[in-house]
Amino acid sequence: MPASPIRKLVPLANAAKARGTTVYHLNIGQPDLPTPPEGLEALRHIDRKVLEYSPSEGLLSLRTRLAEYYHSYDINVTADDIIVTTGGSEAVLFAFMACLDPGDEIIIPEPAYANYMAFAISAGAVIRTVQSSIDDGFALPSVEEFEKLITPRTKGLLICNPNNPTGYLYTRDEMNRIRDLVKKHDLFLFSDEVYREFTYTGAPYISAFHLEGIENQVVLIDSVSKRYSECGIRIGAIITRHAELKKNVMKFCQARLSPPLLGQIVAEASIGASREYLRATYDEYVARRNFLVDGLNKIPGVYSPIPMGAFYTVARLPVPDAEEFCKWCLSDFEYEGATVFMAPAAGFYTTPGAGKDEVRVAYVLCREDLAKALTVLQKALEAYPDRIRE
Amino acid sequence: MPASPIRKLVPLANAAKARGTTVYHLNIGQPDLPTPPEGLEALRHIDRKVLEYSPSEGLLSLRTRLAEYYHSYDINVTADDIIVTTGGSEAVLFAFMACLDPGDEIIIPEPAYANYMAFAISAGAVIRTVQSSIDDGFALPSVEEFEKLITPRTKGLLICNPNNPTGYLYTRDEMNRIRDLVKKHDLFLFSDEVYREFTYTGAPYISAFHLEGIENQVVLIDSVSKRYSECGIRIGAIITRHAELKKNVMKFCQARLSPPLLGQIVAEASIGASREYLRATYDEYVARRNFLVDGLNKIPGVYSPIPMGAFYTVARLPVPDAEEFCKWCLSDFEYEGATVFMAPAAGFYTTPGAGKDEVRVAYVLCREDLAKALTVLQKALEAYPDRIRE
Repeated sequence: MPASPIRKLVPLANAAKARGTTVYHLNIGQPDLPTPPEGLEALRHIDRKVLEYSPSEGLLSLRTRLAEYYHSYDINVTADDIIVTTGGSEAVLFAFMACLDPGDEIIIPEPAYANYMAFAISAGAVIRTVQSSIDDGFALPSVEEFEKLITPRTKGLLICNPNNPTGYLYTRDEMNRIRDLVKKHDLFLFSDEVYREFTYTGAPYISAFHLEGIENQVVLIDSVSKRYSECGIRIGAIITRHAELKKNVMKFCQARLSPPLLGQIVAEASIGASREYLRATYDEYVARRNFLVDGLNKIPGVYSPIPMGAFYTVARLPVPDAEEFCKWCLSDFEYEGATVFMAPAAGFYTTPGAGKDEVRVAYVLCREDLAKALTVLQKALEAYPDRIRE
Repeated sequence: MPASPIRKLVPLANAAKARGTTVYHLNIGQPDLPTPPEGLEALRHIDRKVLEYSPSEGLLSLRTRLAEYYHSYDINVTADDIIVTTGGSEAVLFAFMACLDPGDEIIIPEPAYANYMAFAISAGAVIRTVQSSIDDGFALPSVEEFEKLITPRTKGLLICNPNNPTGYLYTRDEMNRIRDLVKKHDLFLFSDEVYREFTYTGAPYISAFHLEGIENQVVLIDSVSKRYSECGIRIGAIITRHAELKKNVMKFCQARLSPPLLGQIVAEASIGASREYLRATYDEYVARRNFLVDGLNKIPGVYSPIPMGAFYTVARLPVPDAEEFCKWCLSDFEYEGATVFMAPAAGFYTTPGAGKDEVRVAYVLCREDLAKALTVLQKALEAYPDRIRE
């Protein structure tokens, strides 16, 4: 398995910190916002004497609460359709393992979350990508692009909506096109919806489960990590109405015995987070997005679309090779004692050379730090020897 | 992946409970003993605002405490040699994934923990088994039996010591034979030592890391689940001094982002469990083992060796097919409102027909319940229509 370009930069970031440089982490998806107090409070009231295995499919009480939560999004599933996993990561892995045989193919619009690749390799499956472009704001590629890749081994389509790394949110029209493809070619639709809570259009969220006629083909990947800022508890879920698939997933669940008990207790309590908490989190992300994207677009030569979801954007920089620039920021540059750590977007593409001048920027820092990071980025681009000047 | 024979019995056990029958669970490895109060207390004092990702290799503070713990067993490893996993299950999976290519083979003495097979399938690897026998008390099969199975694809040997399901503890002489095999054929030695704490010979525990000359080939699988009765927190570890292997394991760790944060906090605190707690746990298991094994051997036609470790024994029953008998106990029998759930041992063998008259019995219930379960078992055998009479 190849090391991701982000991982390769970690030692450089550590070395910068060791030199006393402040490193603004624009590279990561770990929100700084608080976990709901309801979740933290639940830990203080655990009155169990034994922290024992939970059922392999997760606690019934959590699955029941999750079903209620999904109902609030008009996703009509029952506790029986929900299998709790050790984070969204395990949900992706088990979904792939249960649906795909070695050599089977899935199609994913890229740029895409790099770990899908790692999990596909673990399942012996092959990922084929259709390329979306920053020039179209990362909109869904045309149906023809997908159909070019469909072979007898194609078993599924995977979307991440809202998207990591681009922040793109699929429109109703795009979702319908996805539905038609899935229906026509009888595919699974793997839908990673872990950023569902963070959509900024004002319109209701469109889940894969809202698409008519493919209800039995949807494999929803979910996680509480991002929506309640509790990535460390490792609680995700696979949601499917496909009876045979549920059985297959359960075999993998049984082999690993049980998802984390304590995380399940926190997740269940977090679903009860107050409206105020959810509103404050949402408002903060909107404000950060606006602040970051405005700031990026004000830097000469930098371009970012306005993402409608999640807490990332992919921006184009006026450099020939963003990975080299990201390295240089960590190794050779600082401004007023600080530098920035960004994720080279090339790591999210499989097409060689794609996204070479792009970076993913996460807005999980407070606005004060984002402001400083933007200043550092601007100064870095001014100082960068290989900067492309128009 | 085939469903295990134990899993197949779960619906019968549930049906029995629904009828109001008390079911004594002799089938499971979930201890009823308390989690150390230090571990539970740590949860109440978490003062974090955000339950964020921990490092992919686990918290340094936990890895440091684990290294100290291993030193107390003369296992000389550093925090850098330890990678924290989501339970021992993930440790086995990642060890296989990182060491084995599809088609590679590992040799395991059987009967063996059934999930090794599931993880080997996930890694595309092949498990070959050498059979140990209840007639020898499940001692290590001869070196010749191992060597018969060695091919150019053989990459490792796996031992579980003390053993699940047999409770067998390898002697110094057996461990030396394992070392010689591993050395001669340049193999990995996967050593599952999750029951290290529970050995009943009075002699010091012999870890794979004590074997001279193969220090770089040992891949130790560990877990805090059993030793601190906290199976639900999902904290295990891979311990290896093999630098290249560590790197490979880390790639899988990075793909799943992080092990459970809360479990790590509990595990770290549990390592500080008092001597009294550890002593009481140990004494309780010794007493239960003696009580159970004596009781089993007093039932006409039943034979159990005296296991020197873990909290299981494999016993022979006077029935032609133990799986059928276990089913019958759950479906067709009760004595004074109660029945027993035992694990058919056939599920721990890959050789067809092996262990057909054996069951695994766990002693994770209190003596009062073990006494009742033994009575139920005796009455069941008396009533069983297919019982073999001498």
